[in-house]
Amino acid sequence: KKSYKITLLPGDGIGPEVVSVAKDVLLLTGSIHGIKLEFQEKLLGGAALDATGVPLPDDTLSVAKQSDAVLLGAIGGYKWDKNEKHLKPETGLLQLREGLRVFANLRPATVFPQLVDASTLKREIAEGVDLMVVRELTGGIYFGKPRGFGTNENGEETGFNTEIYAAHEIDRIARVAFNIARKRGGKLCSVDKANVLEASMFWRKRVVALAQEYPDVELSHMYVDNAAMQLVRYPKQFDTIVTNNIFGDILSDEASMITGSIGMLPSASLGDSGPGLFEPIHGSAPDIAGQDKANPFATVLSAAMLLKYGLGEVEAAERIESAVLETLNRGFRTADIYSAGTKLVGCKQLGEEILKSV
Amino acid sequence: KKSYKITLLPGDGIGPEVVSVAKDVLLLTGSIHGIKLEFQEKLLGGAALDATGVPLPDDTLSVAKQSDAVLLGAIGGYKWDKNEKHLKPETGLLQLREGLRVFANLRPATVFPQLVDASTLKREIAEGVDLMVVRELTGGIYFGKPRGFGTNENGEETGFNTEIYAAHEIDRIARVAFNIARKRGGKLCSVDKANVLEASMFWRKRVVALAQEYPDVELSHMYVDNAAMQLVRYPKQFDTIVTNNIFGDILSDEASMITGSIGMLPSASLGDSGPGLFEPIHGSAPDIAGQDKANPFATVLSAAMLLKYGLGEVEAAERIESAVLETLNRGFRTADIYSAGTKLVGCKQLGEEILKSV
Ligand SMILES: CC(C)[C@H](C(=O)O)[C@@H](O)C(=O)O
Ligand SMILES: CC(C)[C@H](C(=O)O)[C@@H](O)C(=O)O
Repeated sequence: KKSYKITLLPGDGIGPEVVSVAKDVLLLTGSIHGIKLEFQEKLLGGAALDATGVPLPDDTLSVAKQSDAVLLGAIGGYKWDKNEKHLKPETGLLQLREGLRVFANLRPATVFPQLVDASTLKREIAEGVDLMVVRELTGGIYFGKPRGFGTNENGEETGFNTEIYAAHEIDRIARVAFNIARKRGGKLCSVDKANVLEASMFWRKRVVALAQEYPDVELSHMYVDNAAMQLVRYPKQFDTIVTNNIFGDILSDEASMITGSIGMLPSASLGDSGPGLFEPIHGSAPDIAGQDKANPFATVLSAAMLLKYGLGEVEAAERIESAVLETLNRGFRTADIYSAGTKLVGCKQLGEEILKSV
Repeated sequence: KKSYKITLLPGDGIGPEVVSVAKDVLLLTGSIHGIKLEFQEKLLGGAALDATGVPLPDDTLSVAKQSDAVLLGAIGGYKWDKNEKHLKPETGLLQLREGLRVFANLRPATVFPQLVDASTLKREIAEGVDLMVVRELTGGIYFGKPRGFGTNENGEETGFNTEIYAAHEIDRIARVAFNIARKRGGKLCSVDKANVLEASMFWRKRVVALAQEYPDVELSHMYVDNAAMQLVRYPKQFDTIVTNNIFGDILSDEASMITGSIGMLPSASLGDSGPGLFEPIHGSAPDIAGQDKANPFATVLSAAMLLKYGLGEVEAAERIESAVLETLNRGFRTADIYSAGTKLVGCKQLGEEILKSV
């Protein structure tokens, strides 16, 4: 019997509620497929700050590193919003990504046929959208140095950051993206701002060079401003998008909102080796935390990505994906995706319905 | 009789066609309001590259600087796409912005009632959208140093740019934005990534400090990834947005696409003193250049912004705005905004119809 260690990081806000559902779904699915899963729960974000004074305790990182995969709920909340940078929940997440060296962030934006009307886009535009944003996650302006506050030659205060990419950082994320595009629709769009930024010119040069190794993938390039427009104009033109950390942050969120149901969208963050990090793309939603209103689908689908991309357990992953579709087909909805004629349930009950569909 | 010198920069692609229409509209409107306009036409972008070898000839910049306002068509085209950076049409535009010190880029995104169905967003979401993006235009990562290509400590090639803002750069763009918000709906949303970037933390600190001088303006803050989502989810929540150069590039294009008719959208770039730069937000559309298919409305509306923000000729500006609405009401459309039941015309004829409505 195969056995894996999973680190659970429920985090803040609705995190614990949705992680608890995903854990149950993983356990049941694992038992069906003969996969033994051992869970260890650790602190991250605001929860960690309150308990230990830091947003990523050493203990959390070392347990995560020694596990086979990490499932995260969500982090952050008003309570810690005014904290200094090193004491922000977000900083804990950035340190975790860096610590796990998960440089490739996979963010699918899929419009579920059952939820197409949830999109603010017209039905004919939203229907059938199924794209994947591959975002570089441990480089660029998020981590580049020098960074900080200074004084310029006129004695004026400044704030600054550095957008920088080294050859291997671009190559490894591009390879991940080419491989994903190959398994999907065979089209890769690299997004940059190469008409202005040297960092983007270099990015484009490396991506173009690598393309030779992937003759079966159709590569195109788009400026980030145009990509932001094209996602609104005609999102179906995209199959796989690869881009840097900050552009990926912006475009993947835009793409997810185009689906109209960000409560449905998972993500995976992968490195070269070591455990991957899996989390819903939605935030900690402090407004509804603890009220049994959260939508657990995105975290459950993140658990499916964990099985597929993290553990290579493709069949078990597909069982979870099917269970999600079946639960939708059976009409169960949390408030964020509710529409007339469907059945409104809370987080826990939705979890039970998903279990029935597994 | 008041008299002004206007520099015309037709540029590339459809630029000459749309500028020619706007010039006629300006002349007629000026004559009605007792405003004398003297035009000087100069080269910029690809046209300048072909004729002089540089994208912004000295002569163009000095004539522009000595004029009262600059009206630009569009720049760029496939022909120059592979040029080295200093020989790109875009570089000419960036040099022009820098040379004119136009640090404040005003980009309205307005859904015209006549064109609401052109939006890919549902009618109830698109209807009534009327927002203004105030983008910082001469600072940030577009101009920050150091920038270029290098070698890191492992002997690896890199590409890098610097995102940097000094206090006065933030203060002056924030003041422009507060003043605009004051004249509009009284709401200003400052967009940044202050949960990650020091440049953004500094930006937010300065904006918050300035807010005391504008107690009548309701200030809010939003992370750029969330702003990219909110523009799709519910664009009507925004009145005035202020943000840095790169985020403004992305978000203003996204906002413009939400209207569904980027052929209708003008922009103004203003400095502390000296001439402003006015241009449609659309590109040079090389595919349809010279075919009399271009939509001149955006350039005509840029001419209205020129009168209003550049010359303080508010009444003349409003006459042009009314003429555009009337021409729309009379049913005239270029191909990009055509729909069944309206009258399809070319660029020139639309120009004549606008003149009739002036
Ligand atoms: C919370 C924040 C630091 C994070 C990011 O910017 O990467 C988030 O927006 C995301 O996309 O996961
Ligand atoms: C052409 C390019 C340099 C320019 C920019 O990025 O500023 C354009 O996208 C714009 O928004 O005017």
